[in-house]
Amino acid sequence: MKSYKIINDPIYGFITVPRGLFLEILDHPMVQRLRRISQLGCSPLVYPGAVHTRFHHVMGAFHLMQKALSVLESKGSELSEEEKEGACLAILLHDLGHGPFSHALEGHLLPFSHEKITKILIQNLDEEFEGKLGIALQIFEGRYHKPFLNQLVASQLDVDRMDYLSRDSFYTGVAEGVISYDRIILMMNTSQQQLVLEEKGIYSLEKFLTARKLMYWQVYLHKTAVAAEKMLLSWIKRLKYLIQGGAKPPICPHLFTLLNTRTEESNPQIWLDDYLQLDDINVLYSLKVSSRWKEDFITSELASRILNRNLFKIELTDLPSNPDLIESRLTEVMSDLNLTREEAKYLVLEGQESNTAYRIQRDEILILKKDGQVIPYSDFPNQLVSSGQVVKYYLSYPKK
Amino acid sequence: MKSYKIINDPIYGFITVPRGLFLEILDHPMVQRLRRISQLGCSPLVYPGAVHTRFHHVMGAFHLMQKALSVLESKGSELSEEEKEGACLAILLHDLGHGPFSHALEGHLLPFSHEKITKILIQNLDEEFEGKLGIALQIFEGRYHKPFLNQLVASQLDVDRMDYLSRDSFYTGVAEGVISYDRIILMMNTSQQQLVLEEKGIYSLEKFLTARKLMYWQVYLHKTAVAAEKMLLSWIKRLKYLIQGGAKPPICPHLFTLLNTRTEESNPQIWLDDYLQLDDINVLYSLKVSSRWKEDFITSELASRILNRNLFKIELTDLPSNPDLIESRLTEVMSDLNLTREEAKYLVLEGQESNTAYRIQRDEILILKKDGQVIPYSDFPNQLVSSGQVVKYYLSYPKK
Amino acid sequence: MKSYKIINDPIYGFITVPRGLFLEILDHPMVQRLRRISQLGCSPLVYPGAVHTRFHHVMGAFHLMQKALSVLESKGSELSEEEKEGACLAILLHDLGHGPFSHALEGHLLPFSHEKITKILIQNLDEEFEGKLGIALQIFEGRYHKPFLNQLVASQLDVDRMDYLSRDSFYTGVAEGVISYDRIILMMNTSQQQLVLEEKGIYSLEKFLTARKLMYWQVYLHKTAVAAEKMLLSWIKRLKYLIQGGAKPPICPHLFTLLNTRTEESNPQIWLDDYLQLDDINVLYSLKVSSRWKEDFITSELASRILNRNLFKIELTDLPSNPDLIESRLTEVMSDLNLTREEAKYLVLEGQESNTAYRIQRDEILILKKDGQVIPYSDFPNQLVSSGQVVKYYLSYPKK
Amino acid sequence: MKSYKIINDPIYGFITVPRGLFLEILDHPMVQRLRRISQLGCSPLVYPGAVHTRFHHVMGAFHLMQKALSVLESKGSELSEEEKEGACLAILLHDLGHGPFSHALEGHLLPFSHEKITKILIQNLDEEFEGKLGIALQIFEGRYHKPFLNQLVASQLDVDRMDYLSRDSFYTGVAEGVISYDRIILMMNTSQQQLVLEEKGIYSLEKFLTARKLMYWQVYLHKTAVAAEKMLLSWIKRLKYLIQGGAKPPICPHLFTLLNTRTEESNPQIWLDDYLQLDDINVLYSLKVSSRWKEDFITSELASRILNRNLFKIELTDLPSNPDLIESRLTEVMSDLNLTREEAKYLVLEGQESNTAYRIQRDEILILKKDGQVIPYSDFPNQLVSSGQVVKYYLSYPKK
Repeated sequence: MKSYKIINDPIYGFITVPRGLFLEILDHPMVQRLRRISQLGCSPLVYPGAVHTRFHHVMGAFHLMQKALSVLESKGSELSEEEKEGACLAILLHDLGHGPFSHALEGHLLPFSHEKITKILIQNLDEEFEGKLGIALQIFEGRYHKPFLNQLVASQLDVDRMDYLSRDSFYTGVAEGVISYDRIILMMNTSQQQLVLEEKGIYSLEKFLTARKLMYWQVYLHKTAVAAEKMLLSWIKRLKYLIQGGAKPPICPHLFTLLNTRTEESNPQIWLDDYLQLDDINVLYSLKVSSRWKEDFITSELASRILNRNLFKIELTDLPSNPDLIESRLTEVMSDLNLTREEAKYLVLEGQESNTAYRIQRDEILILKKDGQVIPYSDFPNQLVSSGQVVKYYLSYPKK
Repeated sequence: MKSYKIINDPIYGFITVPRGLFLEILDHPMVQRLRRISQLGCSPLVYPGAVHTRFHHVMGAFHLMQKALSVLESKGSELSEEEKEGACLAILLHDLGHGPFSHALEGHLLPFSHEKITKILIQNLDEEFEGKLGIALQIFEGRYHKPFLNQLVASQLDVDRMDYLSRDSFYTGVAEGVISYDRIILMMNTSQQQLVLEEKGIYSLEKFLTARKLMYWQVYLHKTAVAAEKMLLSWIKRLKYLIQGGAKPPICPHLFTLLNTRTEESNPQIWLDDYLQLDDINVLYSLKVSSRWKEDFITSELASRILNRNLFKIELTDLPSNPDLIESRLTEVMSDLNLTREEAKYLVLEGQESNTAYRIQRDEILILKKDGQVIPYSDFPNQLVSSGQVVKYYLSYPKK
Repeated sequence: MKSYKIINDPIYGFITVPRGLFLEILDHPMVQRLRRISQLGCSPLVYPGAVHTRFHHVMGAFHLMQKALSVLESKGSELSEEEKEGACLAILLHDLGHGPFSHALEGHLLPFSHEKITKILIQNLDEEFEGKLGIALQIFEGRYHKPFLNQLVASQLDVDRMDYLSRDSFYTGVAEGVISYDRIILMMNTSQQQLVLEEKGIYSLEKFLTARKLMYWQVYLHKTAVAAEKMLLSWIKRLKYLIQGGAKPPICPHLFTLLNTRTEESNPQIWLDDYLQLDDINVLYSLKVSSRWKEDFITSELASRILNRNLFKIELTDLPSNPDLIESRLTEVMSDLNLTREEAKYLVLEGQESNTAYRIQRDEILILKKDGQVIPYSDFPNQLVSSGQVVKYYLSYPKK
Repeated sequence: MKSYKIINDPIYGFITVPRGLFLEILDHPMVQRLRRISQLGCSPLVYPGAVHTRFHHVMGAFHLMQKALSVLESKGSELSEEEKEGACLAILLHDLGHGPFSHALEGHLLPFSHEKITKILIQNLDEEFEGKLGIALQIFEGRYHKPFLNQLVASQLDVDRMDYLSRDSFYTGVAEGVISYDRIILMMNTSQQQLVLEEKGIYSLEKFLTARKLMYWQVYLHKTAVAAEKMLLSWIKRLKYLIQGGAKPPICPHLFTLLNTRTEESNPQIWLDDYLQLDDINVLYSLKVSSRWKEDFITSELASRILNRNLFKIELTDLPSNPDLIESRLTEVMSDLNLTREEAKYLVLEGQESNTAYRIQRDEILILKKDGQVIPYSDFPNQLVSSGQVVKYYLSYPKK
């Protein structure tokens, strides 16, 4: 008789976490830290309800993994207790490496992806838990010998995406992202150890792919949220520039140290403790104090605008911004605010964002047809979602 | 100070119906008759929750029309009280001509579309209500001089579709059909008296078009429901054949009369009273009594199978069924059940169903771009939904 | 590896029915008949969305039973496969004996409760299925030696109530009835073979008891629905009176036979076939034909008013209606409609309805306290719901 | 033609904020600050989804106020534009005075209630907005000459409660708190300038009162959340003691200043700027740095336990904790952790919490009966909710 901790979840009703290893992992400070990292970075400035956290997301993905494994077992996949535990741990830990504001600052506090950092953290935890995370690590890295377990954690049809679409849709109130996660999971199966979707789940799959595309444009790349994220990033870049030039902006020490360090991949020990001490709280606190810092106009201007939601104007276009236009924005900002060109570049932000609704050819979603054949989704007749990548260009600057 | 009747609706919360003309129309037996016509014909045999009625649908569409008119007014469209009343009445009455089981038997009890019959019924009501339905009739027929009112009632972006997708999705439990009707309505506007959608509603529109496509395949053309509908239709055809040959099957008299009449468009008076007396109850009752009728095996077999959900096997294919396959099914049925070829054809059902997700070129949905330009949706860059018509072929027959 | 049929349910998402015995039972005409019996009788006249059926309810209750058994097993209750099957079958069949319009006509078509008829039908099915329903029958009758199984089917905390409150609330759109069925089930346990609720589920229990009380007054005993039901009952009584006096009203033969028979409990064979042929369709069809019957004003008046929702006025009071008031209503109706006193009594309807939110002393809900003690809910400190029975008196008659 | 900003809300769909004064107020840093104050203090440690903010709550309450005013107007209440604006502003600003973690620290950072602080802040804003908030201030203080406006903002049936119950229920996933806010609002009316509820809304009212009671015990006073809040409060008290004794704990300067000041009601200028700079971020940041502070074990122990959700054990009882038991807990903590009695008192926390489901006699909810009479809810027959206050006593201390 197993014992469980039951946790309310507004989306799935209840999430049950077995006592023992799972609960110990969940209670570990590294996982609890995710309570202080918002899932959607700056999106709450646009969608005030979207204040949910990475912690909640990994619990939700863990819940879906339990469901998925149970469906696959009921259809004949043989899974040992260790494998099921490994897959559940892999998903519970898959976002451990995220830093403050999730993707918004990724690559700018440390020159690594969050996956890379996650891997190091799981390795450390594995030592702490005396090797109990070995299979989880293999699954997380995508090298376990039963590919379908790897695919449940990271693929175009993984429980990660299923949870974040459901959760982000729920908390933003954007109905476009609602998917039938339960139906998709019920239609999962395996074929030659690959994860496949039974043909009669095809409409739920198309709903899922469509929802993902629409959520990209309506939420993840909402122009106001993009403006806020680029302002936050510009603030970090300005701080890094100033710190590396010897200034002492009044920000949190761990953030200061990271921005001052020329981080080296070879030795995570240099940056790991500082990084783990960082979460949204440190960044928000640093925004608050630096918004009143008298010594650099750019730093305080960006910080106070983010905090008070006094955001830059932003234009999203299908073609790259005209260099003349960028130049004229720069000139205006220089003249209006009495700044040098180099300074003005922190306030005239341009670049591109892209989204691929569905990636073909490599690592496609596999469909198990009624006749037993397995084909990639892109070969399915009349399929709705094509693979085209969409790129949008942004130009953002202070309103007059 | 207006007085309202408030009606609970599980989808919209409450629907408010102004007392006076609206409530009189709602209480009219012709509208109350829609309480006894199921919205989705045979679908409850697949989706047991989908037992909602045409009555509920027209009330929902009426509710959305109220919302839409209020949004358009707030954006500067000038609308008289008579026009608003006319649009609301037009949508409240737009399904009046439906017969039992909605689309399933359309064209087989009478050689007219339900729209044609609706028009006659609104004309009759207009006389009864002393000309108060004049604008409503014009709007229903699509010939009112403000096209956006016509388009709210019948177009690719009308409140009819918005309600039925929302409602059918809710009652079936198929999340694929959930749409953001409220967001779409908020993004409506007019341009040169045409209904347009503001650009920032584009993702809600794509969600709506996708939902419609997915609902077609997952619900409206669900193969089991198609089998049931074709069986129901075959039962009607068999009865008509027998009756016109002089037989007296024990079915409801109004149905008998209609099946016995060579209906003429020129004079609705011949069939109108019988038609209005018919609803799902008469057909279901006729199924029940004819299921015990000893004199024709085909009639009783079809009726009892429908009632007890002992449905035919059905195959849906992308290509027309192979004539040899059809022939072999026919031969089997003839031999297994000791029937003639003519009789067996009532039990080996084949044909095609099609769906067009979005119709281009003619009567497209118009998008109002941020720069003020109005373009058809198919000219919008990166649009998700293409116009391709999808055709599927079915072959249905008794299971061995 | 078990095989399942998956059925969409808008409330629970999916219901899974194991192939084999369960699916055979579900497909049996006796169970399929419940598709044609509305769960809430005349309530759709008030709540147009509430058109759900007994069939859907028993499937929902079956789903909750599966959940409940799985929770109890996980907490250490030992249950054989036969016992689990028995409990699931008992709940799937527990409403088999309902007649048309569920409770509205109960006791008036046959002088038995629906439970009594259900018992006979399960016995018949047990023969047909060669004794496989033995445990189910014992559980249904409340005499299985593990009382908690009986209590899951019929008690103040059974899955029947949990499903109907959830379902009726969902379909009416009355949020007052929403309960946390999943939390209640998670908090179920057994103690000395009795069903108990763990103390930390106490708030969910109170929500459930409150919801039940509120649903009684807001939905089940909504005054307009009561008026409709009493009119329906009066129509049946009038028909019975006329038929037993030799008249031949144009109603469905099975209904005619039942109303003409002096049914005897001793021999169900006399009435069983006629009763099983009856469902809402027959009653509605009989309403339709009798609404045009020229030979009895009372019959046709009641029928056409029900069909067209032209309902009587109704008053609900805390005290019995004043005899003088009743008398004056009778006199008015006699004079307005030119009827005898005996006739007028079919149109001036009075009586009482009552509801007990929670029944104390006998068969109470048992609470398992944290210290291991088991106490009846009424002994729990600060409990919200008291036991008082509420009685209301109605008087209903044609509007002037 | 008014212009609106449309904001997604997962509960109400959309909230529309008129451009002009409302949007300026919403964009004011004092209101934006509420984005950084969590609605439920420490509850996210129990309900991980409940991370919503005061900002979102005031927007929701503002939305319900718009609905309520529109209903009252449609029923004949005469309201000027200024009055409607005043009521909407009053509710938008009603929580301005809340400090970090909402109620958890109320009265401990400043010796005033949040209402008192709110009043001062509205007065300041009124100056800034040149007297445009005059009516709003009167309504907030409950002294406007149309009492129903005051009652909509603060009474036992105000839109504040309606929003927080709906919102807290939604974000926690505790279905017990779901209420029919839309139905309650539809049933509102006025009588002699008092807010009344029409009798047919009585069941929705009872649902609302019950929901409030249940949410108190299941969410607001959930024992684990109480433990966390009392630990947070103890940490603040410890800091205050140390600071006032001359220590320099590494916490945020504004918090330091407030804890060091002997605040005086007479002159808010002393504390106002520091207070407005404080939100959850400062407290969380101070928790983070003080959790690594070496100089005081009690401070760092409490801080790190809160951050890592390593909470004290807690017992809730109906009677005050036995002094012997408290003494024995204190002794244990002193001996286990080598602390003095004075120090141990920061780790053995005891006290009481109470809740009154409904307050009778003073300021009751008024019911407008069908006969036109207005009575207090407690005089309504068979009413469900009684007035009894419930008190629970807690004792919380480190787990062994």
